[in-house]
Amino acid sequence: MQSKVFNFNAGPATLPVEVMRTAQENFLDYKGLGYSISEASHRSPEFQEVIESAEANIRKLMSIPEDYSVLFLQGGASMQFGMIPMNLMLPGAGADYVQTGAWSEKAIKEATLFGKISVIANSKETSYDRIPEFVDWECNADASYRHITSNNTIFGTQYEDFPNAADGVPLIADMSSDIMCKPIDVNKFGLIYAGAQKNLGPSGVTLVIVSNELAARATDNLATMLKYTTHIKAASLYNTPPTFGIYLIKLVTDWLIRQGGLNSIETVNREKAKLLYDTIDADEFYSCPADRASRSIMNVCYRLPNEELESRFLVEAKEHGFVGLKGHRSVGGCRASIYNAMPLAGVKRLTELMGSFKSKNG
Amino acid sequence: MQSKVFNFNAGPATLPVEVMRTAQENFLDYKGLGYSISEASHRSPEFQEVIESAEANIRKLMSIPEDYSVLFLQGGASMQFGMIPMNLMLPGAGADYVQTGAWSEKAIKEATLFGKISVIANSKETSYDRIPEFVDWECNADASYRHITSNNTIFGTQYEDFPNAADGVPLIADMSSDIMCKPIDVNKFGLIYAGAQKNLGPSGVTLVIVSNELAARATDNLATMLKYTTHIKAASLYNTPPTFGIYLIKLVTDWLIRQGGLNSIETVNREKAKLLYDTIDADEFYSCPADRASRSIMNVCYRLPNEELESRFLVEAKEHGFVGLKGHRSVGGCRASIYNAMPLAGVKRLTELMGSFKSKNG
Repeated sequence: MQSKVFNFNAGPATLPVEVMRTAQENFLDYKGLGYSISEASHRSPEFQEVIESAEANIRKLMSIPEDYSVLFLQGGASMQFGMIPMNLMLPGAGADYVQTGAWSEKAIKEATLFGKISVIANSKETSYDRIPEFVDWECNADASYRHITSNNTIFGTQYEDFPNAADGVPLIADMSSDIMCKPIDVNKFGLIYAGAQKNLGPSGVTLVIVSNELAARATDNLATMLKYTTHIKAASLYNTPPTFGIYLIKLVTDWLIRQGGLNSIETVNREKAKLLYDTIDADEFYSCPADRASRSIMNVCYRLPNEELESRFLVEAKEHGFVGLKGHRSVGGCRASIYNAMPLAGVKRLTELMGSFKSKNG
Repeated sequence: MQSKVFNFNAGPATLPVEVMRTAQENFLDYKGLGYSISEASHRSPEFQEVIESAEANIRKLMSIPEDYSVLFLQGGASMQFGMIPMNLMLPGAGADYVQTGAWSEKAIKEATLFGKISVIANSKETSYDRIPEFVDWECNADASYRHITSNNTIFGTQYEDFPNAADGVPLIADMSSDIMCKPIDVNKFGLIYAGAQKNLGPSGVTLVIVSNELAARATDNLATMLKYTTHIKAASLYNTPPTFGIYLIKLVTDWLIRQGGLNSIETVNREKAKLLYDTIDADEFYSCPADRASRSIMNVCYRLPNEELESRFLVEAKEHGFVGLKGHRSVGGCRASIYNAMPLAGVKRLTELMGSFKSKNG
């Protein structure tokens, strides 16, 4: 079963067709209950099974150590930009941030409300075309934590690997746009967070994976809902969670396990990205603003020779059923967001279109 | 079209069958887009139309004045318990709270983190069986605001009317469990908030209706996502909102308008409540813990002669397709949550069951 449209939206993004079909079939009557899972109590055995399965799937897929909690929160990455310093900033100490794009900028701006922030590496001078080399980071060994943005949706760059926290400063990553696109070593991180709406499910759920030891830093005067410890103690059921979104995350992670897990999905993701980058690199017609070593396998940004051709390409793409290919308004150009749920067939057909557009206009 | 099951869950709760059917039909292909509204960008014209319609519907249904904002936030009432004092507590001033149940208690506990709280009326001594008479409230004319819980799901009590803020102190109401069950005068309030999962839609969206003047109190050092002004300026699109939940709220409010609006739904709600309370009051077999003048038309709490009969009633009810009738674990007994979406037919059939159960066991 293949959709007539390929949706390359940057987020909220396409979800696996199988998942959407299952959710649709069960939308009015979940497992014979006679009503929807979205109409079930969050304290019911049915929902309990959903949230426990979602957590178990995520733990399995990412090999999350026992001393980390897996939380389903609300408010998106933007809420985490505040919660992280509020919970984790140590008295008198600042925090280290690596600035690699618009989302890092927002994280930094928010954190400055709560303490002294050091930007220890920054690729703004080169228009955020790369991830700064680890050896050049000016780390502070006494920082409360060190924050990175693992994938930059707007600029199409991504960390290929992550630094070791040799100085013991906990590494924190905003993985909103590349969580579960490949295996990572969770032990390298103190906290990982991700809005669900790219690789995990619909908008309205934020996944937080946090070391219990790190979460314990929070002071008592913090609002209850803003403390990680509140949600750790209550297993994400302190108050009513976004139940339908968590149900979709359960289905998406079931699907990921059926695909063979993160090693398998990484293979497909790299194949999709290679198809696109090879098409872009074939000659001078298409070009990629991201440095080769930092290219994202989730968001492939590319330019055409001029803006007029870009506009025509986007119109033609839409006519052929490829939507969401316009680059972010702040940078222009084109962007294909090829998250886990984008099938290889969608990318193949896009590269065919890119080829034929070049033939006619090159 | 009638469901084979009547779902009396306290929340997340039943939604109108028509709404659920429409959402199901459009789940894979929204208006011919070729994908789901949950896979559409929150900046797309399609979603823009959804969120604008939802807001317009709410403004129309509740006759919301122009100088109030209608916001779709995240985190539920529990997040509002913190956001309200953080945004609205005036320097050196405290705030007034009316304590009418477990949710008021939580609101009060949270607010004490941020300032001096006066409990100006309290029905705890009578086991939260009533709303304290307005004349007995010990109001502080210099309070930052005055907070009430308009309906108490656990104890089955509800404000029949609201006090006039004669002293100019803004009235704030947690209307999570009775928003839009009847017309109210929004002008009486500075801020109204409600988790969506009872009368509005699925869990994961919080409706906030706030006077723009009141919202302007927030100070600059507050986290961006916690400021009402952030969301007012961005029309609830500062970051990615819970798009699918907002879509369901649009459908639920479309449905409410088709029902004839809040006057019409109030008539049905009062008819449903009267059927149940008449059944309870008919003789001594059933009893209602709530004082008559304070009885809720949303959550009807009742007891049977003993706990053993209550357990048997719940089992028998479930066999007949009535679910979610168990009272809150903190108080026991039975509770029928009869929100807007519960059809009159469901309540009629429940009262028939209550009658036959009494005949057999009375």
